[in-house]
Amino acid sequence: MLTLYYAPGTCALATHLALEYAGVPYEAVRLNFKEQQQRSAEYLRINPKGRVPALVTPQGVLTETPALLQYVAQVHPEAKLAPLDDPFRLAKMNEFNSYICSTVHVAHAHGARGYRWTDDPQAIEAMKKKVPQTMAESFELIETRMFQGPWVLGEHFSTSDLYLYTVARWLQGDQVDVQRFPKIADLLRRLEAQPQVQKVLAAQRA
Amino acid sequence: MLTLYYAPGTCALATHLALEYAGVPYEAVRLNFKEQQQRSAEYLRINPKGRVPALVTPQGVLTETPALLQYVAQVHPEAKLAPLDDPFRLAKMNEFNSYICSTVHVAHAHGARGYRWTDDPQAIEAMKKKVPQTMAESFELIETRMFQGPWVLGEHFSTSDLYLYTVARWLQGDQVDVQRFPKIADLLRRLEAQPQVQKVLAAQRA
Repeated sequence: MLTLYYAPGTCALATHLALEYAGVPYEAVRLNFKEQQQRSAEYLRINPKGRVPALVTPQGVLTETPALLQYVAQVHPEAKLAPLDDPFRLAKMNEFNSYICSTVHVAHAHGARGYRWTDDPQAIEAMKKKVPQTMAESFELIETRMFQGPWVLGEHFSTSDLYLYTVARWLQGDQVDVQRFPKIADLLRRLEAQPQVQKVLAAQRA
Repeated sequence: MLTLYYAPGTCALATHLALEYAGVPYEAVRLNFKEQQQRSAEYLRINPKGRVPALVTPQGVLTETPALLQYVAQVHPEAKLAPLDDPFRLAKMNEFNSYICSTVHVAHAHGARGYRWTDDPQAIEAMKKKVPQTMAESFELIETRMFQGPWVLGEHFSTSDLYLYTVARWLQGDQVDVQRFPKIADLLRRLEAQPQVQKVLAAQRA
């Protein structure tokens, strides 16, 4: 049994979706960020980073979304969540997922979590102003240079679609209209019609 | 033949080292960042992100260090650069590499590349001040919670050692004394004694 620790609105949604698409039993445990449960002594024993996602597996705890996505795909190959038989195509998936975690997620984080990189209140406010620009530039690059269509990696669905879906949900709050990116907007519509996505969104809202 | 585009002092060193440890022929092409070669039309056709590393393979171009490291390990399994036969241990490698790219590298980038996240000159200066703290906190977490010893992942050398070596070289410029982290400092000494590291460092200096 796998146990996923998550909080609504975070990047943990990508791993939550991957588990659902894998079609295997798992438990999803919600942390209340307003009550700072991610900083509790109990949770810090699971994930000393004090963040989500964290996945408790029979072999130990795993963190970091790109690592979790490939792990879920590898231990459930029948779900075909990654091009596991081709190192180059698998690298393209990891390239995309790494770009999301190190550039897109980081751009977004400057809106609400600027305190990670400065203690100056004015600088934190200054960072917020650029988030719509950096997020739009990242999605423009994805739309025009990375997205192969109909899925991120081309003909085959993969974890990259779930990860892109997860961070694209942040665009509205970051004052970027997703309709500027027709291919990505279409991907979101198709994913939102799928029962796995509806089930996970309902569970996270419940 | 693989062709790596790099610039000295950047994270491309990790992939450069991995190629050297893989023991296969490759070409390393240096970009002059002072002349903004990474922004030239010619290079943007190779990597539209305008960054390094980029690896030209027979199947196409790959970017993003964590993806490149696993790729080099997978196409040269005889070099034993990754725990390829165990999805959990491979995920631990990718977890570590993902932490480096999304947290450690990002913390460091706020020193010299704060313009990525704000246009305000005062905010850019404010960001620089916190770099020694964020880098030290990241390395403290690595030293005390992630580093298994004698290598990052335990008994077996992996790409995570090369990536940690690469970003640890930034500590001095970020005003953090690596001797605060004895296990990491010992790893750096052992790696610097290896001929592959010496060869790559000499090539990047030449």
